[in-house]
Amino acid sequence: MNQQLRSDADTIVRQAIRAVLPDAAVRRALESRRFSGRLFLVAVGKAAWQMAHAAVQCLDTDITDGVVITKYGHGKGPLPGCRCFEAGHPVPDENSFRATQAALDLVSGAGAGDTVLFLLSGGGSALLEKPLIPAEELQDITGQLLASGADIVEMNTIRKRLSAVKGGRFAKACAPARVCAVVLSDIIGDPLDMIASGPACADSSTCQQALAVAEKYHLKLSARAIDCLYQETPKQLDNVESCITGSVRELCTAAAAACRSLGYRPVLLTDCLCCQAREAGSFLASILKTHARPSQPLAFLAGGETVVRLTGHGKGGRNQELALAAAPGIAGIDNAAVFSVGSDGTDGPTDAAGGYVDGDTLAALANKGYDVSAVLTQNDAYHALSAVNGLIVTGPTGTNVNDVAVALIR
Amino acid sequence: MNQQLRSDADTIVRQAIRAVLPDAAVRRALESRRFSGRLFLVAVGKAAWQMAHAAVQCLDTDITDGVVITKYGHGKGPLPGCRCFEAGHPVPDENSFRATQAALDLVSGAGAGDTVLFLLSGGGSALLEKPLIPAEELQDITGQLLASGADIVEMNTIRKRLSAVKGGRFAKACAPARVCAVVLSDIIGDPLDMIASGPACADSSTCQQALAVAEKYHLKLSARAIDCLYQETPKQLDNVESCITGSVRELCTAAAAACRSLGYRPVLLTDCLCCQAREAGSFLASILKTHARPSQPLAFLAGGETVVRLTGHGKGGRNQELALAAAPGIAGIDNAAVFSVGSDGTDGPTDAAGGYVDGDTLAALANKGYDVSAVLTQNDAYHALSAVNGLIVTGPTGTNVNDVAVALIR
Repeated sequence: MNQQLRSDADTIVRQAIRAVLPDAAVRRALESRRFSGRLFLVAVGKAAWQMAHAAVQCLDTDITDGVVITKYGHGKGPLPGCRCFEAGHPVPDENSFRATQAALDLVSGAGAGDTVLFLLSGGGSALLEKPLIPAEELQDITGQLLASGADIVEMNTIRKRLSAVKGGRFAKACAPARVCAVVLSDIIGDPLDMIASGPACADSSTCQQALAVAEKYHLKLSARAIDCLYQETPKQLDNVESCITGSVRELCTAAAAACRSLGYRPVLLTDCLCCQAREAGSFLASILKTHARPSQPLAFLAGGETVVRLTGHGKGGRNQELALAAAPGIAGIDNAAVFSVGSDGTDGPTDAAGGYVDGDTLAALANKGYDVSAVLTQNDAYHALSAVNGLIVTGPTGTNVNDVAVALIR
Repeated sequence: MNQQLRSDADTIVRQAIRAVLPDAAVRRALESRRFSGRLFLVAVGKAAWQMAHAAVQCLDTDITDGVVITKYGHGKGPLPGCRCFEAGHPVPDENSFRATQAALDLVSGAGAGDTVLFLLSGGGSALLEKPLIPAEELQDITGQLLASGADIVEMNTIRKRLSAVKGGRFAKACAPARVCAVVLSDIIGDPLDMIASGPACADSSTCQQALAVAEKYHLKLSARAIDCLYQETPKQLDNVESCITGSVRELCTAAAAACRSLGYRPVLLTDCLCCQAREAGSFLASILKTHARPSQPLAFLAGGETVVRLTGHGKGGRNQELALAAAPGIAGIDNAAVFSVGSDGTDGPTDAAGGYVDGDTLAALANKGYDVSAVLTQNDAYHALSAVNGLIVTGPTGTNVNDVAVALIR
């Protein structure tokens, strides 16, 4: 193993993930922001507690009142000025509804000139929910949609209309107060209307489309649900300002900055990678082969979320597969390395964040009796990388903004 | 379809292929070369006639004597100073042996101070051959190796020792004359010892390795063949100077130059791409998505040879699959296009050289009832692209230096 490259990789991983931790991301979004009037805080999602904690710390204004809604076990104690709730995820429960009502009551007290600081992260769809129909019927309709083969856009077109908070309705409920939404994005491309079903995002779907979906899939609906489908969602929200933070783009930007500080010229290829993990690894290896004698050290970065093609029953994750698949292509190039990590620190069902390979890895694997092609067929990258010190272990990080892969050559 | 981008793509394809035609490639390799002493010419391979023709035209020295050996039907008339042979390919026949003997006789007359201009292209392995054992036994041993599952390196280790011209032995036969080898490369990475089994390339394999392969696969060999395995191939050749021309690298360089002349900043990603065609298309599309608003027009280039995963029985080729697979990723980006072509002008078993897609293609396909995912599963890119004017047709080009894919954004 090339100790210099491995050390560089570990530094890049550490700095990139640190930049997208909820605390750092919220701080970056709020620094130099000043709020006039009263400031209300609503934080929702799996990272709600950390986001709220960071906001309370970096704001120079006191919170007038706050509601924090996160998943069971994800709260970490009281926060000044806030009431903390824990609730059901991925299926909303009574605590979700109770907490959501508390948030709605809170914002109903906000007036013109006040601000609702709305901190949103993944998982918000279940945690912030007030169904306009009985919860049992909502669950039944969701089941009908899933069974019918409706796509995610069709599902959301229906569900936004059955909720008092989705599809921009939460922001509507905040009016006349202004909403400052800070969104930690866990979906490639940062689609604001998809993250937590877009509580603070104007909805582009229409009643007509909702009724067409209901007809297309022969949904069985109560009179009350049908009535809901006729109620339009907000098409425009004049009181909302949204800011994406801690996205895969910021993960890539931070990784690029770390590369630069180590002397590499960073080349951002993409921040929306979505192809097969092992093919992405092969592609990155072929890039390094072509640039094997660079005039200056280079770092090619590709952020996103690859997919694993399951062909075996081994242990691994998409980042480990990507790295392992690059090993044959860079074998023997002593100044090249490829690594890939998931920002959440858990790649697939493993305790590793990702994998690292360099020009020595293929030979090291062969020495231990591993054949890369066979290992990939078995989806068993974890054990192979583990045998050659190729695992990158960070522990759970508390954030989730997809993955970044880096190809280094010096 | 974006007519501007389509027109740019056609220009880039035309200029890139023109640069790697045998004539242009040989001319580039020989321009400003001066030979002292007598000049002998030996041209071997599928492009031998064109290479010899170009050499005769651009040299200011007359050929003292020449032998040109190409595949049946590939000669195009007499060449001044040369004897032209046509012979068997991919299996060598009596004409291969007769022509090879003529070449050996020719170079045996060359002395110190003379030069053998050796023009080599794909297919040379069958066309230049003088077995050291009876042809029937050579064929039998090749069959045993194929059936045993031996890899290409193991096969060559054996075959080089059973031949009087492979593994550097042809260049050895030219000594004391100097050999100027001009190689049109059809193999990614331009491995000189692999192209036509390396007649003018020092061999790194050893007798010990050859004997180990024979033992490993329990080869049945005559005493004469066993004797051959004990004869070492040249480990060093002091009289050879090799020049790769018309390789995929030059295809990429020419494509990049064409991009630059059209106002794009070219970014060469790789010239040894080897992953799955459809995944490479998806990767290139994600690069364009990230760079959808460039400060100047950009062209990302990836040369090499992708592979198709066969899952259906449709019609297509790797270049068409690559392009088609990029269509969903760039859908709606009106300033983006991805195209890919094979330099031989025949992509898979089709009459197209490759495929072109842009931001409008996905919608055009949907209009015609094509679903990209379904088409790829059927390996039927040809018909889908054909329906939306997405085929790139050049006709057979007379060269074969792999493929180039280009992702444009302006």
